[in-house]
Amino acid sequence: MADIATYTLLDTVKFPEDIRKLSIAQLPQLSNELRQFIITQSANNAGHLGASLGTVEITVALHYVFDTPNDKLVWDVGHQAYAHKIITGRKENFSSNRKYKGISGFPKMTESVYDAFGTGHASTSISAVLGMATAARLAGNQSQQHIAVIGDGAMGGGMAFEAMNQAGGEQANMLVILNDNRIAIDENVGAMSQYLLKITSSKSYNRVKKGLWEFFNFSKLITQAFSRMGNALKGQIVSKSNLFQQLGFRYFGPADGHNVVKLVRLLSNLKELEGPKLLHIVTVKGKGLQKAEENQIAYHFPGSYDPETGEIIVPDEQNSPPKYQTVFGETILELVLLNEKVVGITPAMATGCSLTIMRDKFPNRVFDVGIAEQHAVTFAAGLAAEGYIPFCNIYSSFLQRGYDQIIHDVALQQLPVIFCIDRAGLVGEDGPTHHGAFDLAFLRTIPSLIIASPRNESELRNMLFTAYSERTKPFAIRYPRGKGVLTNWKTPMEKLEIGKSKILKKGKEIAVLSLGPLGNNVSTAIAILNKKGIAPTHVDIRFLKPLDKEMLDDISKTHHTIVTVEDGTAVGGLFSEVSEYIAENKLSIKIVHVALPDSFIEHGDVASLYKSVGFDVEGLIKIISSQY
Amino acid sequence: MADIATYTLLDTVKFPEDIRKLSIAQLPQLSNELRQFIITQSANNAGHLGASLGTVEITVALHYVFDTPNDKLVWDVGHQAYAHKIITGRKENFSSNRKYKGISGFPKMTESVYDAFGTGHASTSISAVLGMATAARLAGNQSQQHIAVIGDGAMGGGMAFEAMNQAGGEQANMLVILNDNRIAIDENVGAMSQYLLKITSSKSYNRVKKGLWEFFNFSKLITQAFSRMGNALKGQIVSKSNLFQQLGFRYFGPADGHNVVKLVRLLSNLKELEGPKLLHIVTVKGKGLQKAEENQIAYHFPGSYDPETGEIIVPDEQNSPPKYQTVFGETILELVLLNEKVVGITPAMATGCSLTIMRDKFPNRVFDVGIAEQHAVTFAAGLAAEGYIPFCNIYSSFLQRGYDQIIHDVALQQLPVIFCIDRAGLVGEDGPTHHGAFDLAFLRTIPSLIIASPRNESELRNMLFTAYSERTKPFAIRYPRGKGVLTNWKTPMEKLEIGKSKILKKGKEIAVLSLGPLGNNVSTAIAILNKKGIAPTHVDIRFLKPLDKEMLDDISKTHHTIVTVEDGTAVGGLFSEVSEYIAENKLSIKIVHVALPDSFIEHGDVASLYKSVGFDVEGLIKIISSQY
Repeated sequence: MADIATYTLLDTVKFPEDIRKLSIAQLPQLSNELRQFIITQSANNAGHLGASLGTVEITVALHYVFDTPNDKLVWDVGHQAYAHKIITGRKENFSSNRKYKGISGFPKMTESVYDAFGTGHASTSISAVLGMATAARLAGNQSQQHIAVIGDGAMGGGMAFEAMNQAGGEQANMLVILNDNRIAIDENVGAMSQYLLKITSSKSYNRVKKGLWEFFNFSKLITQAFSRMGNALKGQIVSKSNLFQQLGFRYFGPADGHNVVKLVRLLSNLKELEGPKLLHIVTVKGKGLQKAEENQIAYHFPGSYDPETGEIIVPDEQNSPPKYQTVFGETILELVLLNEKVVGITPAMATGCSLTIMRDKFPNRVFDVGIAEQHAVTFAAGLAAEGYIPFCNIYSSFLQRGYDQIIHDVALQQLPVIFCIDRAGLVGEDGPTHHGAFDLAFLRTIPSLIIASPRNESELRNMLFTAYSERTKPFAIRYPRGKGVLTNWKTPMEKLEIGKSKILKKGKEIAVLSLGPLGNNVSTAIAILNKKGIAPTHVDIRFLKPLDKEMLDDISKTHHTIVTVEDGTAVGGLFSEVSEYIAENKLSIKIVHVALPDSFIEHGDVASLYKSVGFDVEGLIKIISSQY
Repeated sequence: MADIATYTLLDTVKFPEDIRKLSIAQLPQLSNELRQFIITQSANNAGHLGASLGTVEITVALHYVFDTPNDKLVWDVGHQAYAHKIITGRKENFSSNRKYKGISGFPKMTESVYDAFGTGHASTSISAVLGMATAARLAGNQSQQHIAVIGDGAMGGGMAFEAMNQAGGEQANMLVILNDNRIAIDENVGAMSQYLLKITSSKSYNRVKKGLWEFFNFSKLITQAFSRMGNALKGQIVSKSNLFQQLGFRYFGPADGHNVVKLVRLLSNLKELEGPKLLHIVTVKGKGLQKAEENQIAYHFPGSYDPETGEIIVPDEQNSPPKYQTVFGETILELVLLNEKVVGITPAMATGCSLTIMRDKFPNRVFDVGIAEQHAVTFAAGLAAEGYIPFCNIYSSFLQRGYDQIIHDVALQQLPVIFCIDRAGLVGEDGPTHHGAFDLAFLRTIPSLIIASPRNESELRNMLFTAYSERTKPFAIRYPRGKGVLTNWKTPMEKLEIGKSKILKKGKEIAVLSLGPLGNNVSTAIAILNKKGIAPTHVDIRFLKPLDKEMLDDISKTHHTIVTVEDGTAVGGLFSEVSEYIAENKLSIKIVHVALPDSFIEHGDVASLYKSVGFDVEGLIKIISSQY
């Protein structure tokens, strides 16, 4: 790829209408340039490289054939939409991808009319597109087309199935492009995945495939005849009863997702067909960057790399603290060595949450259930009901998907599932779809759930051990993305008293109650304030639930103001809880909070975001000192 | 049925072990007696009649063949488990079914060891059973069997698909019984449903069916041979590529779900087969009660009826107030007459929420999307993105399933979806799985969502009209199950000011802030207190979000105590919100709350439950007067 020095064609393209002026024969070159552009741009501006390299040709083909933005195109998850962003008016700004105040790493309705629907979480696209197709039908708009592009991983999410079920049942006019790259973030799992593999590797499919494409290259006249013949003929050509056909969709494929010319011909024909259609394309995640093709998990989000060789530039992190993820991964491995009833569960995030560490040693005690948060929670509940000790690791914003199951299947039955809630708080560049802003609030309202958040790696270990030892109730431990603060973190595990806070510093007048790692910024702020003669008390509350009432009673007798500090929304979490207690008991103490505001927080580097919401040391100093 | 005067066999059965002493030939009579017992008992103790009449034979067969409770049997949803309850030690108590302090209408782990996993919401059983089967595998327990019984409606829920996907992928040892009665609560919808119909009505299926059953009646030796031959042979007998087979399950059926003898033979054979198996049985909802078979929707939950004729005993309700459901149904019909962009969406609750009223007139503007809350929300978002006005009606406790979608697809994108949250607060006999206890809390934490709850039918109309008129943000309106308080309710619709409370009565010292219909009990309580010379202020806060701060400022200047009254948990809702405001602004006012405690509330009649949590007039009088 590196031999493309200039972007001869890409330079002429600002919007899809510019692509439509090109000949079909020019599209392979445009695709190559686009791919090179993504590789070059992402080399020193980290992003979701692998997925976006895989979708270059389908992106070009879709915008070439369909009349976007009048036709509606929705990218499931959306991290594969870089090519889409670049050719829909955002090429010049693409260097700001994922940066604070820059363009979003995901489709976003307010950013472009070409982003028909915002995404970020998986498996939503078919529902949204079905809604849009339904709107067009009701409005009598017969010309508008509706397309969802969804990966094979996201297709395994229950929500996608629900949408397919309705769309197939109603015979809605829409096209689902199943982008089959055999991988979600980790290797894809589940029966659906195996089924797709069977299709793409079966001899009969490969035998008919060539014939099918020839057939498609015939004139529109034949396509129309084909349309009239409908599933009958199609069924004979491709498959007697394909899973998607059984769900009411016409199935086409598998097609080579990197042959842009054939994709254009195929889409042009499909455009003429009524009803629900699924086009199964096979793509290579990381396509065009050899190292990314060879190591698809690492290049899902590689960070910085050499744009020529693809070599990942590993930052020098010697003697730096570990990620919370690593601490979780290493610690659960210690726990399973203590007790073989320990099992790990993740909905498609084994690498991201570091359950891979345990899986390498105990492959049969770690369950990657696919993109299936609802199921993950109840599956864990089933294991707990039989005496196993499930550590169910789900990212905070994805746990929203399993909310009913936590209430209905776990908490109501008092099953001691241990929820390890990763990516809690502000996650940074992934932005509002991925910030873990609400978990403290939506979990606190669930009866009998224990909720804890560690200030550092040692505390995370202690909390994991406490949850492991307790096992009378469900237990949630939430911690952020990224690095901790200790280098010497592998301390002996200690069982904490449930609901007991820890006084880090005794002071006067003001008491800062912090939950989680933000407490470290508080410590720094207080150290600076101390030099100015200001000496607040600092309590690491550790447990959001149950509340340490004794501590609050003490504090309120000896201080005039409480400052709560939490990496979550101000509505419903720690601030709410302490307010409830103060108001109900008419404690004579003022309360001020540091928390996320009651609005969605944009994307950007964590430092900028922290500054914007007052989570940085300076912000904390300001709010604490203003109370004196 | 009515000719069975005595329960000759049933009288001998207390536990499944008693059934296992019977000969196979006796099972049809036992089934008939069991069915008659259910009909007789439910005639004047309302329950989920239809579903439970359909599962009598499969219940008997399962307990006859499998070694419950050592083998694990999970009933999806669980309202079809009456026969199961009756033959697992709860026959004597069955007259207390669903009553306060009586047995639960759903399986419940704490009630019986035979209830291997509690249910209530749909589509959870396969996940739970897969967890249990996995536990058995890890423990090296090869003899334990694991069975989920799931209806065709629940099978359409995404969570069931997620579980099938993992189970099929891992080739887990488990049996899924697909109880196909062609109906959820309303007629079943979606492609999966059509697919099942195709199977059960296809000639080739019916041709091989007889042969297959003969085949199954052979000895175990043949079954074992069959087992070794695996899918290859099976595939040739029944279907070349069945949807469930594509998901990695062995498919068996369709079988007559009312032939208990054949079911026993079939299950005995299936017991010997390794791997994931699905047995598709066809049953008739309401089986054995002619009227229930003829009108399956009405007899899903018929209330009282004549046990001989099945005739439903319609209570005399002339001049009584309408249900909130009817008010919703009639009002949305008025709105669609105002604006054809209005659409109604329900996940399988068209009858229960009264969207049927609109559907009768505008069938193409009402969408029953099946048991698919996640999809329902994002489908609504897709419609809203294209300028339609979706009223998405979901029961409070089921909305927990769509939580992520409300945040990620609706609120984040500021799409003006109108959520009509039915069954909010305590629902009564359905109990903790169905109480709408958490919606106020989990919704309040979502930025920019408007949240309202009407005190009566007129207010519901006004709120629906306000949401319809507003359309700048998502809007949630929550209201309870059952009757309102006005007989003359069809008042002209009025647009309310967003976030503006209404002073119902000016008083002194104490201000009662109520949200929703509990305000009527407050009014009654205050009227009684007035006679004793106690005169609190009463404010109907109407909007949980945004908060009427002006009113709170006023109140706090002129009163010494606020009593918040809400039909939801005390953790995170109105009480929390007012506490936050008081604490943060250091308002000089005490706060006391009437709300659900931070625990799960059991089932029972609403009056008893209200009394138990202080929602009754007497309870309200007590708490209000105690503050003077």
